[in-house]
Amino acid sequence: MEIVKHHAVHGGTLRYLKHHSAVTGTPMTLSVFTPPGEGPFPLVIWLSGLTCTEDNFTTKAGAYRRAAELGLIVVAPDTSPRGEGVANDPAYDLGQGAGFYVDATEAPWAPHFRMESYVVEELIPLIDGAFPTTGTRAIFGHSMGGHGALTLALNHPELFRSVSAFAPISSPTRCPWGEKALGAYLGSDRSRWARHDAALLIQAGAAKGRFDDILVDQGDADGFLAEQLKPHLLVEAAEAAGQKLTLRMQPGYDHSYFFMASFVDHHLTFHAERLR
Amino acid sequence: MEIVKHHAVHGGTLRYLKHHSAVTGTPMTLSVFTPPGEGPFPLVIWLSGLTCTEDNFTTKAGAYRRAAELGLIVVAPDTSPRGEGVANDPAYDLGQGAGFYVDATEAPWAPHFRMESYVVEELIPLIDGAFPTTGTRAIFGHSMGGHGALTLALNHPELFRSVSAFAPISSPTRCPWGEKALGAYLGSDRSRWARHDAALLIQAGAAKGRFDDILVDQGDADGFLAEQLKPHLLVEAAEAAGQKLTLRMQPGYDHSYFFMASFVDHHLTFHAERLR
Repeated sequence: MEIVKHHAVHGGTLRYLKHHSAVTGTPMTLSVFTPPGEGPFPLVIWLSGLTCTEDNFTTKAGAYRRAAELGLIVVAPDTSPRGEGVANDPAYDLGQGAGFYVDATEAPWAPHFRMESYVVEELIPLIDGAFPTTGTRAIFGHSMGGHGALTLALNHPELFRSVSAFAPISSPTRCPWGEKALGAYLGSDRSRWARHDAALLIQAGAAKGRFDDILVDQGDADGFLAEQLKPHLLVEAAEAAGQKLTLRMQPGYDHSYFFMASFVDHHLTFHAERLR
Repeated sequence: MEIVKHHAVHGGTLRYLKHHSAVTGTPMTLSVFTPPGEGPFPLVIWLSGLTCTEDNFTTKAGAYRRAAELGLIVVAPDTSPRGEGVANDPAYDLGQGAGFYVDATEAPWAPHFRMESYVVEELIPLIDGAFPTTGTRAIFGHSMGGHGALTLALNHPELFRSVSAFAPISSPTRCPWGEKALGAYLGSDRSRWARHDAALLIQAGAAKGRFDDILVDQGDADGFLAEQLKPHLLVEAAEAAGQKLTLRMQPGYDHSYFFMASFVDHHLTFHAERLR
């Protein structure tokens, strides 16, 4: 991994890194915060939303103060492969910046858009090899990245002790963002979409015995709430499956990083308790 | 004032505002954070550095968590007038985004570049009129804005109870950024520059009996430290004048907002203690 730049922050070190990904076949970028001390430290992975790079969370979430206090490594990857020779779409919600944390099977996306395998098979071993991690992990994210955090945790529960989300796309098989992206990346056979739908996974019991609680924060002034995010589908799925899930509707909060900055401390504490 | 957008954050409200400035003769933009509750609240003004708008501090400093706890209104104005018909320079360190918190007397800058009067005569009454302020104020800033905070506080001590700075341009009469800007805005007669030089003001006793302490944080890995910032000139001036000034050299920290985010809580606490 190449260190693009680094900064001291809250007594720890923040690195912007770049590496060639064997999974996506492209360069990939990410940020890694390491807290003060020698470690080893648990790892928390953040997945960002549509249009984001690794930079949005890193500069705007204000997460590193609490991560330093709790002794957590925090990793934020980019949201898709990028660059020349990588397929793209003029819309903001498909292609570069919109990887949706799935492995695409359809043209033109299949060669590079493999974000599920990238995070699970390449990013985690890469971080565990390069930084003093304990081997215990949590994952969280926002919007498309909240969907990513929930579905990666539910499909790979052996990798994560804890999962939470801010304003996740709760059921991408039942909203315009998800139907567009899953249709493009996975094709029109909807049976192949189900394992990328957090609500359907929870309803099928994927979280049972794995996660004692799933924390979801959602602003009630979020303009995407009714059409795209639909967190009530997570609550209904959890109730049907007998799974604990805590949805906190936050009055007045919107879809911006100001919302995440307001509650990121609580999410980090939630994860730290489960990573001890 | 027109509300451009607003966000809930840390229990308070953040507004991006726009108004027509009678002082600069242009539209001016700013952000205003109001903490939870009815107030009245003391006001803290943040002044940003070269190339910044009101957005850099607002999104990156992570200041509103502590400001909410302390019950402080935090205002961040843009760093210069902007727009068509406003003079500019292709360099990043002159013209739009580089107002230096002075009232320009020279062409082509004099008609609009009046950032000292804007902050002191227009912004403060505007905020006091529109928000529930106590009428007590502090001011702080970064780099060019650290220079601005120090010089505005020292030239208008009746307006501010407290002042601090991150990596300020400590003596603009003795560094390339300052010599270029003051020469352009105020002309070649250096005697007119002295009242915009914090080190010279402190040495002349401008802080005596007004500010019990002046807090300055400076990263020792800041690439601008030796040539542009020179905080030792503040320390020497304070010693010569018998003025208390606390310079904290922060090991490993650079000139970025990650540095400011790491210490902004301490600055807000410093101001809140003096605003009670």
